[in-house]
Amino acid sequence: MKLLWINPVGTDLFDRPIQEFLETAKAPDTEIEVVSLKRGPMHLEYHYYEALILADTLHEVRRAEVKGYDAAVIGCFYDPGLREAREIVERLVVTAPAESAMHIAATLGHSFSIIVGRKKWIPKMYENVIKYGFKDHLASFKSVDLGVYDFQKDKEETARRLKAAAKEAVEAERAEVIILGCTIEFGFYRELQEELGVPVIDAVIAPLKYAEFLVELRDRFGWAGSKVYGYQSPPKEEIRSWNLEEQYGIPGVWG
Amino acid sequence: MKLLWINPVGTDLFDRPIQEFLETAKAPDTEIEVVSLKRGPMHLEYHYYEALILADTLHEVRRAEVKGYDAAVIGCFYDPGLREAREIVERLVVTAPAESAMHIAATLGHSFSIIVGRKKWIPKMYENVIKYGFKDHLASFKSVDLGVYDFQKDKEETARRLKAAAKEAVEAERAEVIILGCTIEFGFYRELQEELGVPVIDAVIAPLKYAEFLVELRDRFGWAGSKVYGYQSPPKEEIRSWNLEEQYGIPGVWG
Amino acid sequence: MKLLWINPVGTDLFDRPIQEFLETAKAPDTEIEVVSLKRGPMHLEYHYYEALILADTLHEVRRAEVKGYDAAVIGCFYDPGLREAREIVERLVVTAPAESAMHIAATLGHSFSIIVGRKKWIPKMYENVIKYGFKDHLASFKSVDLGVYDFQKDKEETARRLKAAAKEAVEAERAEVIILGCTIEFGFYRELQEELGVPVIDAVIAPLKYAEFLVELRDRFGWAGSKVYGYQSPPKEEIRSWNLEEQYGIPGVWG
Amino acid sequence: MKLLWINPVGTDLFDRPIQEFLETAKAPDTEIEVVSLKRGPMHLEYHYYEALILADTLHEVRRAEVKGYDAAVIGCFYDPGLREAREIVERLVVTAPAESAMHIAATLGHSFSIIVGRKKWIPKMYENVIKYGFKDHLASFKSVDLGVYDFQKDKEETARRLKAAAKEAVEAERAEVIILGCTIEFGFYRELQEELGVPVIDAVIAPLKYAEFLVELRDRFGWAGSKVYGYQSPPKEEIRSWNLEEQYGIPGVWG
Amino acid sequence: MKLLWINPVGTDLFDRPIQEFLETAKAPDTEIEVVSLKRGPMHLEYHYYEALILADTLHEVRRAEVKGYDAAVIGCFYDPGLREAREIVERLVVTAPAESAMHIAATLGHSFSIIVGRKKWIPKMYENVIKYGFKDHLASFKSVDLGVYDFQKDKEETARRLKAAAKEAVEAERAEVIILGCTIEFGFYRELQEELGVPVIDAVIAPLKYAEFLVELRDRFGWAGSKVYGYQSPPKEEIRSWNLEEQYGIPGVWG
Amino acid sequence: MKLLWINPVGTDLFDRPIQEFLETAKAPDTEIEVVSLKRGPMHLEYHYYEALILADTLHEVRRAEVKGYDAAVIGCFYDPGLREAREIVERLVVTAPAESAMHIAATLGHSFSIIVGRKKWIPKMYENVIKYGFKDHLASFKSVDLGVYDFQKDKEETARRLKAAAKEAVEAERAEVIILGCTIEFGFYRELQEELGVPVIDAVIAPLKYAEFLVELRDRFGWAGSKVYGYQSPPKEEIRSWNLEEQYGIPGVWG
Repeated sequence: MKLLWINPVGTDLFDRPIQEFLETAKAPDTEIEVVSLKRGPMHLEYHYYEALILADTLHEVRRAEVKGYDAAVIGCFYDPGLREAREIVERLVVTAPAESAMHIAATLGHSFSIIVGRKKWIPKMYENVIKYGFKDHLASFKSVDLGVYDFQKDKEETARRLKAAAKEAVEAERAEVIILGCTIEFGFYRELQEELGVPVIDAVIAPLKYAEFLVELRDRFGWAGSKVYGYQSPPKEEIRSWNLEEQYGIPGVWG
Repeated sequence: MKLLWINPVGTDLFDRPIQEFLETAKAPDTEIEVVSLKRGPMHLEYHYYEALILADTLHEVRRAEVKGYDAAVIGCFYDPGLREAREIVERLVVTAPAESAMHIAATLGHSFSIIVGRKKWIPKMYENVIKYGFKDHLASFKSVDLGVYDFQKDKEETARRLKAAAKEAVEAERAEVIILGCTIEFGFYRELQEELGVPVIDAVIAPLKYAEFLVELRDRFGWAGSKVYGYQSPPKEEIRSWNLEEQYGIPGVWG
Repeated sequence: MKLLWINPVGTDLFDRPIQEFLETAKAPDTEIEVVSLKRGPMHLEYHYYEALILADTLHEVRRAEVKGYDAAVIGCFYDPGLREAREIVERLVVTAPAESAMHIAATLGHSFSIIVGRKKWIPKMYENVIKYGFKDHLASFKSVDLGVYDFQKDKEETARRLKAAAKEAVEAERAEVIILGCTIEFGFYRELQEELGVPVIDAVIAPLKYAEFLVELRDRFGWAGSKVYGYQSPPKEEIRSWNLEEQYGIPGVWG
Repeated sequence: MKLLWINPVGTDLFDRPIQEFLETAKAPDTEIEVVSLKRGPMHLEYHYYEALILADTLHEVRRAEVKGYDAAVIGCFYDPGLREAREIVERLVVTAPAESAMHIAATLGHSFSIIVGRKKWIPKMYENVIKYGFKDHLASFKSVDLGVYDFQKDKEETARRLKAAAKEAVEAERAEVIILGCTIEFGFYRELQEELGVPVIDAVIAPLKYAEFLVELRDRFGWAGSKVYGYQSPPKEEIRSWNLEEQYGIPGVWG
Repeated sequence: MKLLWINPVGTDLFDRPIQEFLETAKAPDTEIEVVSLKRGPMHLEYHYYEALILADTLHEVRRAEVKGYDAAVIGCFYDPGLREAREIVERLVVTAPAESAMHIAATLGHSFSIIVGRKKWIPKMYENVIKYGFKDHLASFKSVDLGVYDFQKDKEETARRLKAAAKEAVEAERAEVIILGCTIEFGFYRELQEELGVPVIDAVIAPLKYAEFLVELRDRFGWAGSKVYGYQSPPKEEIRSWNLEEQYGIPGVWG
Repeated sequence: MKLLWINPVGTDLFDRPIQEFLETAKAPDTEIEVVSLKRGPMHLEYHYYEALILADTLHEVRRAEVKGYDAAVIGCFYDPGLREAREIVERLVVTAPAESAMHIAATLGHSFSIIVGRKKWIPKMYENVIKYGFKDHLASFKSVDLGVYDFQKDKEETARRLKAAAKEAVEAERAEVIILGCTIEFGFYRELQEELGVPVIDAVIAPLKYAEFLVELRDRFGWAGSKVYGYQSPPKEEIRSWNLEEQYGIPGVWG
C-alpha cells in the first residue's frame, strides 16, 4: 500500500529524517513518500501557521487520492485539517498524530499524559482531547519548554527534559501511558519507555500504523470513512462550476 | 468604531444585503464595511470550502487591524478561523455568529435549539457547542433541508420551514430560545419570534452586537483578548524571516 | 437607559463607592441608581444571608420594572436570585456578576481562574460554573483568605494577595483570564491586569456592561428573556388573589 | 426521633393529608409534626414563590433545631433552600424530595424518569439533576400537564395520566425507575408501581425515610453534615450584632 | 431483618472482627451473619482476585436469598459483583461499600476525597465514581501506600497516615467529606473525624446501614430493585436446562 | 502471530462458524484458534452468565500467554473481563468487541449507533460507552428484539430487522456509523453497509483486527499494555503461596 506523509510546513528539512524514521516502522508492503509543502512556515506552533498550510495540505491529500495512494498522514500533533481531509476524500484513509496516539494510549492504559513543547500548545490540544472523547482519560499536559526546532538540536537535553516531565506525570498524576505531543519529538520514545517502564507513544509512528490499520479495514471490510452528514464530500460539479482549481492554482486536484 | 464584516466567500452577492441589514442593527457610531473574498467558493456548506477561505479570511482580519479597525466579524455560522483570528490580532476584536449567538441564547433562556439548513452541518456545529461549553443548554438541532442559496430565494417557503422546525423545537424539545444557524437565514428572526413567542437569535446581528460590546470592554477596561498561551501571537520577526508575506502574496498584512 | 444596581445587603456603605465606580464605567446614556436593602445582613458570605435578602432583592427588581427601568443588576458574585428575577420580569433585563464575567472571560481566553475571598465561597460558585456551562473553561479557584470587608480596608495588602493568587493561576494552572470573584474586589482589576498581562474581569463592571448590552438587544431586536418554560412568569391574578403583596408588605410591587 | 415536615406554602390545606400519609410511612419511633407557613403562596410552581418562602422555611428549620428536633424535610420537589438549610444547622438533618428520590432511584435502577406536572418545572429540576450528579442516569422528564392543585382533585384522571407518562418513559426511554416529581403527587406511587412493574418513588416518603436514615448515621456514627467550606454556618455573633432576628421578626431563631 | 455480610475472600480472618464491628453499628432488629468464601485469595487488591471470587460471591448472594435473608453486603470497596448481584436477586437487597459511601458523602458535603491503600486501586475506583455519577463531587483520591493487611497491623501508623492524607485532602483539595476506601480501614473513622472535624465515612458501616435503609424501603413501599432492562433476572428454566448448578457445583443455588 | 479467540460460553456451537468467519478476515500470518469454555451458559445475555464465565475466560487468557500466543480476544460485546485480562497478562495483547468497534467507529464518523438484540443489554453497554469515552459520539442504541440464538436462525428476518433499525439510526438520529452490538450478529455487516451506505462494524472482525494492530505495536515499538497502577499484575508469589491454582483447579495457569 502507498502512504503519503505530509510534513505540513514550508521546509523539507524534516522530510529525510522523518522518511528514514518511518521506514523503520512501516509494514513491509507499505511504500512511503514524505512530502512537505512548496511554501509555508517552518513550524506550526502558532494556529495562524496551521491556517496558512491548511489548504495546501488538503490539496496534497487530494493529490494522494488522485494518484492512487491508500493513505495520507497529516504530520502535526494539532491534527490540522484532519476532519476536513476526511470530508474531501473518497476512499483515501487519513490519519493524524493526536487522534491516533490517543486511541492507542486509551487502549494501553487507563490514563495518559501528553508532553508538549510549550504551554502555548495546550489549549488547542485540550480541545482536541475533549473532541475525541478522552477527557476522563487525560492525566495531565506537561510542558518541557522547548520549541519544535529545539527537540532534535540538543538531544540529550531533550531526553532529560522529556524524562523529567514524563516521570512526574507517572508519579504525581498517575499517568499510565505517555504521549509525546509533537511529531518532532520523534525517536525519543524508546529510551524513555525503557527508563520509565510505561508505554511512550511516538507521534510519528502512531499515525503511520493507525493508517495501515485503517487501510486494511477499508480494503477488506469496506470500513471506509463514513460519507453521510459530517464527512459528506463537496460535489465536484460545484467545485468545477466555481473554477476553484483555477482560483487556487490547483489544476487537477479535483480531477 | 469601525467594524469589518467578512463574508468569507468568493462572491459579493451577499455583501450589499448584509450591509443593509447590518446598518439597521448597528450602533450609531459604528461604521461598517462589508467585504467578501477575491476568490473562493460561493458558500461554505462543506468544510473544505472553509479551509479554502481560511487564510484569506485571516488576512482580511489582519488588514482590518492594520487599517485601524476596531473589530472584525467572520460571517459564517461554522465560526471558521475564530480561534486563529484571535491569535493573530493584537487589539482587534473578532467575533463570529455561533459563539455570539450561543452566549446570548444561554443568557436569555435555559436551553436553545439551532435551526440549520442541512443535517450535513450538524456534526461540526455540535463540536462547537461542546467546545463553547453549551452542551447542557442545547435542546436540539433541527434541519429544514435547505441550502444556503435557498434561504432567500423563496422567502415564504423558508419562513414556513423555519417556523415549523422552531415550533417543534419549542414544543417537543422544550427549547426556550431559537438560534438561526446560518448567516444567510438573516432577516427571518423577527417575524418568527413574534409568531413563536420566544427569542429568535439572528446569526448576523448577534456577532455584530457582540463585537460592539467587546470593543467597548476593550477600550474602556482593557479587556482585550488574552495573549498568553492559546492566543499568543506568532512573532513578527519569524513571519518576516520566513517571507510569509511574499510566499502567500499578502504584502503588508504583517506590517 | 435606566439601570438599577442592587447591593443586596442591609447597609448602604457600599452604595456610594459602587455608584462612583459604576459612573466611570457606564455608557453615556445610562442612568444608574444604586440601592441597598432596608434590612439585611452586611455581607453575603453565607448562603443564609443570601436567603434572607432574596425576596427583598426580587422586589427591588420588580420595583425597577414597575418604575420603568431598563435593567437591574444583582450585585453579588453568588448571583443570588438571578434565575428567579428573570422569571418575574416582563421586559426588564437582569444580570449578575458571575454569569456576566464568565461569558466575557470565556470569550477572551480559553480558560479562567476565579479569585475568591474565602474557600467557603467555592462550592456554590463551582455549582454555578457548572450550571452556566463553563466547567471545561475553569482553570481553578484561588482563595486569598480575605472577607468582604477586608478587600477595601488595606488595599495594598489586598492587591498583593490578589496578584499572588492570580499569578499562580496564570503560571501554574495556565489561566488565560482572571475573574475577581466578589463585587467588593472592585477597582483592583486595572492594576492587576497591567501587572499580569492578562485580562482581569471586574465583578462590578461586567454585569453593568452585560446589562447595557442586553438592553440594546431587547430594545432593537426583541431579544428579551424567554418567557416559556423556566422563565414563565407567575400569573398576576394568582398573586393578587393570594394577597401576596399584603402578606409580604410589598404594596404595588405587582401593580 | 422528632421530625418536622415543612410544607413551604402559605396554606395548611395539605398539612393534614401529608401528616396522615407520613404516619403510614414513618418509623415507629419517629414523631412527625407537619407545619406550613404563616404566609406565602398556595403552591410553588413558580420560582418567585420559592423565593418568597425561602427565609421563612429556613427559619422553620432553625426552629426545629432550637426545639431539639432531629430532622426537617423541606416538602417541595424543587428542594428549595436545601443547601442553605444545611449551612445554618448545627446538627439537624435536612432532606428534600428531589435529592432523596434521586439517590434512591439511582440505587434501584440504572436510569430514572421524573414525572412532573408542567413543563415549566423542568429546567430548574434539570439543573438539580446535574447538580446532584445524576445526568447520566436521567432517562427523561415527562409532563402530565397538571398543576399542583389538580393532582388530588380528579384522582382517577391523575392516575391515568401518570400511568401513561410513566409507561412511555419505561418503554420508549427505557427508564428503570419512575420518580413522581411533586410532593402533591403523593399516594399514587403504589398503584402505579404495581401496574408498571417498576419502582415508583413517592416524593413525600423518599425524604422522610432519607431523613430517618441520616439521623441514625448522625447519632450513631457522627456522620453529620460537613461544616467546612460550603456548609460552614454563619457566626452567631455576626447575626446578633446585625440584629437580624429583629430585622426579620424572628426572635429566638438564632437562640 | 437478616443480613449477610460477605467477605469475598478465601480467608475467615476478618470475619470475626468485621462481625464484631458490625454488631456495634447494626439496627437492633438486624441479625448479621458474616461469611467468607471457601476458597479464594486473601485480599482483592488485584482485579484478577475480584474475578476469582465473583461467581462464589454471587452464589452467596443467591443463598442468602434462598434462605430468606433480607439483604447482602459485598464487603469490598471495588463493589465487585454489585450490578450482577442486583440482576440475580428477586427481592434481596444488595449493597456494597463504594456506592453506599458515595451516596452518603455526596449528601453530607459538596465534595469528598477517597483515601485508598495503593495507587493501584484508583483507576478502577475512579471508573466507579464516574459510573455512580459523582465525578463533579470528587475532590481527590489519596493513597497512603499500605496494603490491605497493613491497615490493622500497626494501627498507630495507619491512623497517622490516614490523618495526614485526609488532612491534605481537606486543606489542599477542599474535600468536605472523607471516605475510607477499603473495608479493612474499618474502625479508624471515628478518631479521624474527631481530629479532622469533617465526617469520615467507614466502608463497613456505610453499606450495612444503606442495606437496612433499602430493606425498609422495599418492605414498606415496594421499592425493590427494578427488574426491567439492566437488572432483569436470568430465567430459571434456562439455568436449569443448562445444568448450571451442576456445572458449577452449586446445588440448590437456583432452587 | 498466534491469536486465541475465546467464545466465553459453555458451548462449542459457535466455534466453527466463528473460526471460519475469522479465517476470512485475518492477516495472512495470523494463526487463529477458537475455543469455548468447558462449562458455562450458552449465551451471555445476563450479567450473571458473564460472572460465571469470567474466571474461566481469564484462565484461557493466561493459558494463551503461557503457550506463547500473541493475542487473545474475549468474544462478547459486553467485553467481560477485558480490564481484568489486561491486568493478568505480561505481554499478551487482549481485545474485545465493544472497545475495538467503538475506537474504529469514532474514527470513521462523528457518531455511531449500536444495534443490540434486546433492551436488556443497553444499560451495561451504555456504561461501557461512557467508560471508554464515547458518550458524545453515541447517536443511539437500537434494539431489534432478538436473542443471541435468533440472529443466525432466520437470517432474512435478522437482516430485515438490522436494516430497519440501522436505517432509523442513520436517518432519525444522524448516526454516521453503525456498530453491530453482538458477536453473533457476525456476517451481516457487509450487505447492510452496502444497502445503507455507511460503514457497519462487525463485532467479530473488529477485535480481531484491533488485536493484530496492537500486536504489531507491541512487537515493534514496545507499546504493550501499561503495567503501572490499574493494570499492574498480581504477584505470582502471592498466587502461589495462596495455592490459587489448586483451589480453582487451574494447574499451570500461573506457570
